[in-house]
Amino acid sequence: MNEHTNTQAITLDRLTAFAVEVLIAAGADRVQAGDVGNILVWNNAFGRHNQGVWRLPLLCKRLSAGLFQCPCNPRIDDRAPAVALVDGDNGMGHYVGRVAVDEAIERAAKVGAAAVGVCNSNFLGALGYYVQRIAERGMLGLAMSNSFPKVAPHGGAKPVLGTNPLAFAAPRRNGKSVIVDLATAASAGSDITKAAELGEALPEGIAIDRDGRPITDPAKVNEGALLPLGGPKGYALGLMVEILCGVATGAGISHGVRSMYRDFERGGDSGHFFVAIDTGVLMPLDMFYERMELLVDAIRDCEGVMLPGEGRWRAHAQTEAAGGVEFDEATTDALTRLAGSHGVATPW
Amino acid sequence: MNEHTNTQAITLDRLTAFAVEVLIAAGADRVQAGDVGNILVWNNAFGRHNQGVWRLPLLCKRLSAGLFQCPCNPRIDDRAPAVALVDGDNGMGHYVGRVAVDEAIERAAKVGAAAVGVCNSNFLGALGYYVQRIAERGMLGLAMSNSFPKVAPHGGAKPVLGTNPLAFAAPRRNGKSVIVDLATAASAGSDITKAAELGEALPEGIAIDRDGRPITDPAKVNEGALLPLGGPKGYALGLMVEILCGVATGAGISHGVRSMYRDFERGGDSGHFFVAIDTGVLMPLDMFYERMELLVDAIRDCEGVMLPGEGRWRAHAQTEAAGGVEFDEATTDALTRLAGSHGVATPW
Repeated sequence: MNEHTNTQAITLDRLTAFAVEVLIAAGADRVQAGDVGNILVWNNAFGRHNQGVWRLPLLCKRLSAGLFQCPCNPRIDDRAPAVALVDGDNGMGHYVGRVAVDEAIERAAKVGAAAVGVCNSNFLGALGYYVQRIAERGMLGLAMSNSFPKVAPHGGAKPVLGTNPLAFAAPRRNGKSVIVDLATAASAGSDITKAAELGEALPEGIAIDRDGRPITDPAKVNEGALLPLGGPKGYALGLMVEILCGVATGAGISHGVRSMYRDFERGGDSGHFFVAIDTGVLMPLDMFYERMELLVDAIRDCEGVMLPGEGRWRAHAQTEAAGGVEFDEATTDALTRLAGSHGVATPW
Repeated sequence: MNEHTNTQAITLDRLTAFAVEVLIAAGADRVQAGDVGNILVWNNAFGRHNQGVWRLPLLCKRLSAGLFQCPCNPRIDDRAPAVALVDGDNGMGHYVGRVAVDEAIERAAKVGAAAVGVCNSNFLGALGYYVQRIAERGMLGLAMSNSFPKVAPHGGAKPVLGTNPLAFAAPRRNGKSVIVDLATAASAGSDITKAAELGEALPEGIAIDRDGRPITDPAKVNEGALLPLGGPKGYALGLMVEILCGVATGAGISHGVRSMYRDFERGGDSGHFFVAIDTGVLMPLDMFYERMELLVDAIRDCEGVMLPGEGRWRAHAQTEAAGGVEFDEATTDALTRLAGSHGVATPW
């Protein structure tokens, strides 16, 4: 799913403008669509195409069906100096997530660290964007989100938890933050969806059918379940994410979160959780950066090992070298059809 | 490593008193030994015997060798309302950890959430104790610790990171918190040590030799490395723990953390990181408890599935039913020898 061969590179600016115009044509508010477009294209720029503009058809379908409040009016509830709760007003998750993570950054700048929970939100894409936003401010960031149930608890065969991702970023002096971003399932949901679209088989150990037997056909995952990452440990981490994002915020819990792919009656009601810690409060930022490089050097001592996030930074350098993002034909075709149906010109 | 057959149950009070007397005889301060004894016996009571009084011989060896500052004088550095750094003064890790987690709880009670980093500390045992201490106060707790390098980064063959555990707890109305406590390695270090002691083979996929080839002999792990949990994801989580506990606190980083088993020249210089979030600030505690049970019910809908921490609570109920803790002969013999060498009477 990473072959991008057939078209010339589209600059990030043009791609963002295109994404925003399509979203607006589908009913989005211009300002909020701006955030969504930026975040989608950020993912394309960093090589995570299945979290990029490939999402536009689904987002537009939900916008056109009135399933997002747009513009939404997120209510930021000041619960304590280091804690806020954000009611996302059923807005587009990317926008709500951006508002919430900025709230966490602002509070951490004041009191050193802050936790911000979010309810009544929707799919917000890859968490890497949000933790990198924290790291860009020289802070340490954690982000989590619950999602609709796809993953069986360890020892069970029914889906109870979402792929419930967890992300972390730490800044480096060269700007290339360490970015950890992982599903607590054996595979990310977006990878299953993309594999199903491409008709590719899943590796063993990713999914089971409703009787708990191993399967490799991504199209059958909907009737079965994904397995948690590494058995009991991934299950435990997924449950932690569900507690922080679902239970503790007032968002949907387990089947209370709805599938954006299958439920076209209601909003997703998913929840997110962000933590920002101001690195400069812990020690002078220069010292922190020096200490980060001690760790990086220790890792580099192992030949062939990459830092978490390094693949993204390499992809980002390629994007810059290419002067923008290149797409495979399937993505180009899908976006061309979408643009046509909304009367928007394509950048290719 | 969980057969406890040969002796009658020792009450928790007597076991704690015994642990404390042995520690004092080896040179520990009475007050600080009290915390260490409580935490060791907490682990025995919850069935985690390899984090219990089985640790006493090693702790006493390090105490007698003057490798702990005891009493230590942890310096709590107030960095911001929601952030403190604790210099553990090279004290016993269990004591330093208890002081630091209480600092996180106290700060979260004031400003809603708090992060407390710890440097210049030592092995603090299972993190489950510390997060449960947070959950007992009705708060949500996170704990992490770095440790001496045993784990190869994904794709490498040299140990660079510790087993770097990560723990989380969330309170429930019935008092039986959800307790997540996992090594970011494919196995906990204490399980390897115990397997080596018992001469048991490790499962496949846990460890490699120095050339990166799979091994199952626990005695050979010291010359090779453990693998991270689930490959790249466990590696990324272990690196996150190293950044928060090592880089961001001023503690040892990677090989800057020393093995308590092998280095008898210096303190461990390990670091810890605690986050406490006051649940009652997010929503009324009653509502949180109701919502927790919605999630628990969703999990229970899967037959045969346990909650993280449920095994501990079952072990705890067994301990209560038995009137205390029962030990296997090997543990009893080792503790009897230790007690004899320090002139302390055993409780059996």
